Amino acid sequence: MDERDLHLMQGILFTDMYQLTMAQVYFEAGIHERPAHFDHFFRSYPNYGDHKAGYCIAAGLDWLLDWMENTSFDQPALDHLARERDIEGRPVFKEEFLHWLSREGNFKKLKLQAIAEGRVVHPNVPLTTVEGPLAMAQILETALLNSLNFQTLIATKAARIRHSCGSRLLMEFGLRRAHGWGGNQASRAALIGGCDYSSNAGLSFVMDVPPKGTHSHALVQAWMAMGRSELEAFQAYADLYPDSCLLLVDTVDTLNSGVPNAIRVFRELRRKGYEPLGVRLDSGDLAYLSIQVSKMLDDAGFPQASIVLSNDLDEMTILQIHAQIRDDSERNGVNAEHVIRRLTYGVGTRLVTSAGQSSLGGVYKLVALQVGGEWKPAMKYSNSVTKLINPGHKKAWRIYDNRDRATADLIGFSDEDPASQETLTLHHPAIQGVSRTLKRSDISRIEPLLERVWEGGGRRQPRPTLEELRTRCREDLNHLDTGVLRMRSPHIYHISLTPRLLEAKLQLIAKVHKLREG
Amino acid sequence: MDERDLHLMQGILFTDMYQLTMAQVYFEAGIHERPAHFDHFFRSYPNYGDHKAGYCIAAGLDWLLDWMENTSFDQPALDHLARERDIEGRPVFKEEFLHWLSREGNFKKLKLQAIAEGRVVHPNVPLTTVEGPLAMAQILETALLNSLNFQTLIATKAARIRHSCGSRLLMEFGLRRAHGWGGNQASRAALIGGCDYSSNAGLSFVMDVPPKGTHSHALVQAWMAMGRSELEAFQAYADLYPDSCLLLVDTVDTLNSGVPNAIRVFRELRRKGYEPLGVRLDSGDLAYLSIQVSKMLDDAGFPQASIVLSNDLDEMTILQIHAQIRDDSERNGVNAEHVIRRLTYGVGTRLVTSAGQSSLGGVYKLVALQVGGEWKPAMKYSNSVTKLINPGHKKAWRIYDNRDRATADLIGFSDEDPASQETLTLHHPAIQGVSRTLKRSDISRIEPLLERVWEGGGRRQPRPTLEELRTRCREDLNHLDTGVLRMRSPHIYHISLTPRLLEAKLQLIAKVHKLREG
Repeated sequence: MDERDLHLMQGILFTDMYQLTMAQVYFEAGIHERPAHFDHFFRSYPNYGDHKAGYCIAAGLDWLLDWMENTSFDQPALDHLARERDIEGRPVFKEEFLHWLSREGNFKKLKLQAIAEGRVVHPNVPLTTVEGPLAMAQILETALLNSLNFQTLIATKAARIRHSCGSRLLMEFGLRRAHGWGGNQASRAALIGGCDYSSNAGLSFVMDVPPKGTHSHALVQAWMAMGRSELEAFQAYADLYPDSCLLLVDTVDTLNSGVPNAIRVFRELRRKGYEPLGVRLDSGDLAYLSIQVSKMLDDAGFPQASIVLSNDLDEMTILQIHAQIRDDSERNGVNAEHVIRRLTYGVGTRLVTSAGQSSLGGVYKLVALQVGGEWKPAMKYSNSVTKLINPGHKKAWRIYDNRDRATADLIGFSDEDPASQETLTLHHPAIQGVSRTLKRSDISRIEPLLERVWEGGGRRQPRPTLEELRTRCREDLNHLDTGVLRMRSPHIYHISLTPRLLEAKLQLIAKVHKLREG
Repeated sequence: MDERDLHLMQGILFTDMYQLTMAQVYFEAGIHERPAHFDHFFRSYPNYGDHKAGYCIAAGLDWLLDWMENTSFDQPALDHLARERDIEGRPVFKEEFLHWLSREGNFKKLKLQAIAEGRVVHPNVPLTTVEGPLAMAQILETALLNSLNFQTLIATKAARIRHSCGSRLLMEFGLRRAHGWGGNQASRAALIGGCDYSSNAGLSFVMDVPPKGTHSHALVQAWMAMGRSELEAFQAYADLYPDSCLLLVDTVDTLNSGVPNAIRVFRELRRKGYEPLGVRLDSGDLAYLSIQVSKMLDDAGFPQASIVLSNDLDEMTILQIHAQIRDDSERNGVNAEHVIRRLTYGVGTRLVTSAGQSSLGGVYKLVALQVGGEWKPAMKYSNSVTKLINPGHKKAWRIYDNRDRATADLIGFSDEDPASQETLTLHHPAIQGVSRTLKRSDISRIEPLLERVWEGGGRRQPRPTLEELRTRCREDLNHLDTGVLRMRSPHIYHISLTPRLLEAKLQLIAKVHKLREG
């Protein structure tokens, strides 16, 4: 695998083969340039086993648009396709089709609307809609789902972990256990969803945020192998990084060696006019050790020094550590909140792989096709009625109540305008007869969620900065009910259909039944 | 993110920041070029929740070596490092260090030994050993772990899924739910561990194996939106791909529409002299539907047509489908083995994300450092004795019994030679006093596991073909006891230490205790 192979694998052929063979069927049938409309959405929140999410954070869009900008059927890709043979040794792809791909095989004629990256999103609401020539809209599917499914999964996990650790510093450390090159997407999504920093050097430079880290056990081991000591290793580190001195104290023995040696080094630093950042604990009973180490640092005159925790942390472990510190603080004569306030977190594996739920099941469904200048709804007549897609061109709105809390997302046809109505009827998307009525006076705002992000050959909006993405995320989370933010058994946020969309869906269901019986 | 950013993120800065700051500490201390020895190993098999692995399949090495070949501290990387500032606004990296990196910041002086890619591997056995200048061996850590952890995780999952479906065709379909660009590594590892084909087009071309696929619901939906029928959509597909016709039959209604329409198309194909490949089922009760569809295909005269199953499959689901078909076949008047023999599998999400256990905890530990021309063992004095690393330069051997089954992996010092001994004592690595003795006559072979793969500035061996990797994998699996291959509660394969290594480790443990008490 060299640069050329890497380019091939990350270019237009970063797709499932069937997108290309289907595109050729469309080409043969002469419908490859017919306007089509696809919806992208996911059907359920991540469920991590004994805890689950009550919201997701949309992520991955900006990198998808980058890919669309830079990617088309170039000669190396076309050459590979031209060489492909079927069982009988005949070319799989015909010359005319490849010729069409060489001219039109790019994403310039598509239009994308999307819910902005960084925002809170919910199941069944279209997160992205794609409109344009059927063949290229089809070919976009795999890359779109790959980018949005994964980054949304990780941004969501990061938001949950951020929630568990309050306003304390949170760093992403997961590259070594991440899924190959996907570690870069993981670090990016983690920064959007809630991490302050990442250890991933290259990605941090690209996102324009300084990469962070401490040191590993190897540093102390190296000094000791040379017959020198943990203290001398710490001193070497502190000499080089006097104003960002954070020492890993569990290589030998946390309480009997690591922390006493760190304190010695911190005292030297202070004599030279520097304040230490703190220590890192990477093993053992982190709650117990946090209390003990906090006392030692206080007694030595370093009440401001941080304690960085790492070692397979996630949102539930962090909550558990806080609970244990609160349970155990009185017995130890410490103020629990003081200990918790000085904790900061290095989270790796369980964040970047979304442990417990390692995928988000986002799908990309054809919902309408233009026939004779008119849009016709496209349906998948699945075996299960709850999996029926919502047909046609749709919009989505977020409805805020009088406390300015998001109370529901509403899906309707794109020519509907809920803001103009005196009362809003919100229908449950699956259970018939269940609905909720809101008066205009109960509502503080109705916000359209989908924005035009790609049209006329490229982006419609400037590239968002990381800070903008993070701000969107924080603000949306602030508008959620605390029950929705809950880590386990969260309150179910309402996703509703307008009466017209529900009616259209019911008609299609009736048509399915007829079709099955007929 | 453009091509330049992509290069930056996948080049030498695909690493944790602390590798670079530690390297600078080594540089300042003048030990950056001191020969060091790191071991890479993992501590436990993947545990997927209610089932777990009894072996792993090593993967990721060849791409790691590619990366090492093509990667060094180039000017863009050095420029980013030179701009990095600490809290006080001073450069984090000193000019002399960056200058050293510009000259020596590559992997040419390292020596790597490794267990060959594709082979069965077990916990605590060194899978890779790295020897060379301390700073560059340190900097390799993140990329090495990223590549080997992830591909080993996925190759292992693929081997398990392969085991569950016997010799039937197995395809990997997971790119849309894979972890970003890591989808390419996932597809590669899946092909090594047991998948026959992948849907990932670019990766398949790079691996020189044809990408495979069928079609999606969108094809049928498009025809129906145009007022045409499922049958016509199938016909369009069959016309274009007459000798590889595989039809997805669950868009409308599997038994009442999809299969009857597919059979009509298959009959037309046969009249034209083609045999159909079969149908794909992507929803519903796959075992029940397999029986019904098998009967319909038989009755129509297509007993050879395959039934491709997909929809969140993994090894346990496949076993369950087989069991249900066997339970239900008599009542339905079918031969269960006939149905099972015609099944083939499209496995996606749960394979490429290793659902249930989304990471492998491989670690990279400094085990020795050269001091005054002599190797000194390096230890991490962890809080838990079972996590103590095995010190020094080691070798590993696989011991085969008289049935030519692998019976144990043995770890010892690199100057030991178990093949020369009349009886072998295999010590349990953690529980003292537990050992097993093998006579020479009980043993058919003793095979050294580690091979030189990188030395003298590059690869020591030709790049393996996919077929070679797959053969290694299959042959090693054939040498495992069926108990070890079991999906749930597998038999624990023996990992043992030689008496000399155990003795050395016990001495180090005693030293730790003294150190902690002193």
